[in-house]
Amino acid sequence: MSHSTTRRNVLRGTAATAAAARTEAAHAAPHGGGTGPNIGILLYDGYSLLDPTGPAEVLSRLPDATVTMIAEKRGAVRTDTADVAVVAERSITEVDRLDVLLVPGGGDRGTVGAMNNQALLRWIRTIHRHTRWTTSVCTGSIVLAAAGLLDGREATTYWASADYLQSTFDVTYLPQRYVRSGKIITAAGVSAGVDMALYLASLIADDDTAKAIQLAVEYDPRPPFDSGNAAEASSQLKERALRLLAASQVPT
Amino acid sequence: MSHSTTRRNVLRGTAATAAAARTEAAHAAPHGGGTGPNIGILLYDGYSLLDPTGPAEVLSRLPDATVTMIAEKRGAVRTDTADVAVVAERSITEVDRLDVLLVPGGGDRGTVGAMNNQALLRWIRTIHRHTRWTTSVCTGSIVLAAAGLLDGREATTYWASADYLQSTFDVTYLPQRYVRSGKIITAAGVSAGVDMALYLASLIADDDTAKAIQLAVEYDPRPPFDSGNAAEASSQLKERALRLLAASQVPT
Repeated sequence: MSHSTTRRNVLRGTAATAAAARTEAAHAAPHGGGTGPNIGILLYDGYSLLDPTGPAEVLSRLPDATVTMIAEKRGAVRTDTADVAVVAERSITEVDRLDVLLVPGGGDRGTVGAMNNQALLRWIRTIHRHTRWTTSVCTGSIVLAAAGLLDGREATTYWASADYLQSTFDVTYLPQRYVRSGKIITAAGVSAGVDMALYLASLIADDDTAKAIQLAVEYDPRPPFDSGNAAEASSQLKERALRLLAASQVPT
Repeated sequence: MSHSTTRRNVLRGTAATAAAARTEAAHAAPHGGGTGPNIGILLYDGYSLLDPTGPAEVLSRLPDATVTMIAEKRGAVRTDTADVAVVAERSITEVDRLDVLLVPGGGDRGTVGAMNNQALLRWIRTIHRHTRWTTSVCTGSIVLAAAGLLDGREATTYWASADYLQSTFDVTYLPQRYVRSGKIITAAGVSAGVDMALYLASLIADDDTAKAIQLAVEYDPRPPFDSGNAAEASSQLKERALRLLAASQVPT
């Protein structure tokens, strides 16, 4: 077949960009060589799949970045639906320093499990001492709050968890896509992690790098509907969204 | 600690929605019971992480849906950066029918590897015979084309791969977020899979269900920059995006 070649550049449009890409690759440190940011994403049973993987896609394109999935134990860690598992490459006992920590959110079972797991909370507190950025997506901010990191701060979380966050912890909820408070950045629900990761990329590198990453992942969002904002949603739509989530998740 | 309870509903805002969620969960078939769509996502060495995981997040919220990660062999399948692995729960020899097939894209190494893997291409052709929907994200459309499924059709792909797709196969490239041609739906690069999955959710279920899923994953995109559209990007930005991609990926 005419396309059966391993030498053709599928992604690169022109010989010029191919050459430029080879040049940048040659200048870059070997993969995982550690000259770039060391980014760790904490997985726990019952996280929501897009919470860690959206930011990982974005942040892995930072120059010389290393992204490591971490959990209480190494191995496959299942999502809230239990259909899908991402591999934790390292256990928390193997990781004592990170430039960036990201804590994803999950369903009720996963979030409550994480916020009551004292070993995880201790590890989060320890890692946070030396991070450049400590971040969360969705109900991951509730896990950060349970670890004591959000006391007296402004933060965001999943829209349906805002009341819980504010009533349970000394946190002021802001209905924003992401909220920066010192070196802590919290993102709203699930897909907001992608927006937060681009913002984080601009802080770690610069705006031009973040813009290039946005183009690299072709993030020019055009959802077929305009129903993702809870502040504009009807109570019927909100109830239906929560019913679909509950029905898709492995129950508590 | 006052928040140490496993009985509190973290996600659900009110007692009413909690009760409604329990009702929907009770009416739903047991998880994976097979009354809903059977969705299979093909993984191969060198795919891009968000390509399968964004749509999986969305499609897993369809009523009674089952999402299964599939690869040539069961087990961990690594992304283009090799940092992250998602578990393939089934091998292609174990799956002979799917309602929905999704083929993700990858870097050069992954895409070229998949399009030259005759066992994968045969499996894609066989599965496609009985699918309701055969779909792709990013350079996954090039894999579909290599399997012979896009002959004479309109399709989209990753922006930097459009010339390759059109010059190598009998395909008309459309610079759209997603393109439907009969029962085949192709999405543009990486993050476009989320938009495509919401469209697909509306086809599998209905608009109201897709809108509720969009709210469930809080997909109200607000990227900090507006640089994700290749048609509006400078040649400098495009070259930088491709350099970052190339440098982040394990080389061919």
